Amino acid sequence: MKRRTSFQGALGAFSQVAARQLVGRYCIPVPTETFEEVFVSVVNGKCNCAVIPIENTLHGSVHENYDLLLKYQLVIRGETFVRIVHNLIAPPGVRFHTIRRVYSHPVALNQCRTFFEENPGIERTPFYDTAGSVKMIMDEGLKDAGAIASAAAAEIYGAKILKKSIEDDRQNYTRFFLLERPKRAKEFPRPRGTKRFQTTVVFTLRNTPGALFRALGAFALRDLNLTRIESRPLRTKPWEYLFYLDFIGHADDPAPRNALRHLAELADMLRVLGCYPAAE
Amino acid sequence: MKRRTSFQGALGAFSQVAARQLVGRYCIPVPTETFEEVFVSVVNGKCNCAVIPIENTLHGSVHENYDLLLKYQLVIRGETFVRIVHNLIAPPGVRFHTIRRVYSHPVALNQCRTFFEENPGIERTPFYDTAGSVKMIMDEGLKDAGAIASAAAAEIYGAKILKKSIEDDRQNYTRFFLLERPKRAKEFPRPRGTKRFQTTVVFTLRNTPGALFRALGAFALRDLNLTRIESRPLRTKPWEYLFYLDFIGHADDPAPRNALRHLAELADMLRVLGCYPAAE
Repeated sequence: MKRRTSFQGALGAFSQVAARQLVGRYCIPVPTETFEEVFVSVVNGKCNCAVIPIENTLHGSVHENYDLLLKYQLVIRGETFVRIVHNLIAPPGVRFHTIRRVYSHPVALNQCRTFFEENPGIERTPFYDTAGSVKMIMDEGLKDAGAIASAAAAEIYGAKILKKSIEDDRQNYTRFFLLERPKRAKEFPRPRGTKRFQTTVVFTLRNTPGALFRALGAFALRDLNLTRIESRPLRTKPWEYLFYLDFIGHADDPAPRNALRHLAELADMLRVLGCYPAAE
Repeated sequence: MKRRTSFQGALGAFSQVAARQLVGRYCIPVPTETFEEVFVSVVNGKCNCAVIPIENTLHGSVHENYDLLLKYQLVIRGETFVRIVHNLIAPPGVRFHTIRRVYSHPVALNQCRTFFEENPGIERTPFYDTAGSVKMIMDEGLKDAGAIASAAAAEIYGAKILKKSIEDDRQNYTRFFLLERPKRAKEFPRPRGTKRFQTTVVFTLRNTPGALFRALGAFALRDLNLTRIESRPLRTKPWEYLFYLDFIGHADDPAPRNALRHLAELADMLRVLGCYPAAE
């Protein structure tokens, strides 16, 4: 069954790589311009699901997407990690020694400093996004230019990879969520063969000494294992904090259910954003 | 006394705005290309201090700078918040209706979507950085182009602000740290008139149920108030986590000192990155 899957960016963006991992071969990619459009496309039924980046090992959390998770009533159905591999890409027939300029998003250009230091004759040229720079050099038929983007972008636009994996840091991973509309029944599904479920919640606490300690007691007293926590000040309400928390367990199982009820006694706001198979 | 202050980016970058707030009128700005160069410039004595961004309300933590705080032996001496205000800037004499292109970093261009929707005749043109785009339009003497950057960038390069504050979201703040070499004596200074000190620590825990709960007990049992916590998986050691934690209090006072000794019993690694006057 084909599934229309929206993501922010051009065709060939790293979000599309994540979409392939999460949705598989029935994925029909639907690129959009903004993250908000991604959410709206699922809310209004134009897409079956969406894929969003949520955190990166070098750049931290994408708070904008956590805010959109609170604004729209979608649920997290899966997670995956994509290693950010940057490739030097050029139109077919263009050879490495003829390249004078390389286009990409400034963040990607900055993550390939060693390559540019070793090739001082090549000019770095900022562009809107990584995959879009591959589309542009192909559309314009440039003979002396390359682009830096994912292998998927090279494949989609019919370009060639001249050098693989030219990024400085190989420990650059982005975590993505798969989002869907919630089911009518209030239970979370249990995909067959899943060994380990993970639950993502968001809650607010007033900033008093020990508040977070007591909140985490809800999990510690039931031997539940946390895999992520992050605090964020609520600018609209000084001295209140928003917390993102992931733990191992299915939200409908007894210990997690009791922990969430316990946490709800302490938190001003609590929402379960999803319960899904944990990535390896 | 003049203080050479390094930061990443061009003259007029938001980091320079933060440097002015933190160092005051004796600040001599020293722009560098990478964050690592910022740290090295203080370690090797070429600069007296450095200013680095550490987290942003929309984009999360700058993990790269936390990693550099662990790699180099500098200490945090202050913090400040800068609201990210984007202005439309042009060379003197250029008027709004003659502008056809606007240069800036793609992130800044994307944060001014409303402006571009209301002005469809103006083309968005990606550039390396915000302040650098002001320098470029001035150097080239462009008559039909503008740039998006801080008010400081307009002032530094002698350009004019045509429209103030064209960003979509006014809740876009970046938090910056002031860094120095540590003093010989192991105590943290106590600048006069400081009402509230804050301490930043980083530590690692093995991922067992309740590990973080017990670690936070070190603070809760002494009524110390946390203002920030974030976990981060250690890719080099699966199932170990790095935590960033800020709390209110001076690291050399009795309760914080005892809490840190208590935390050291539980953590595999613990480092106090600094103790400094908390920003308002």
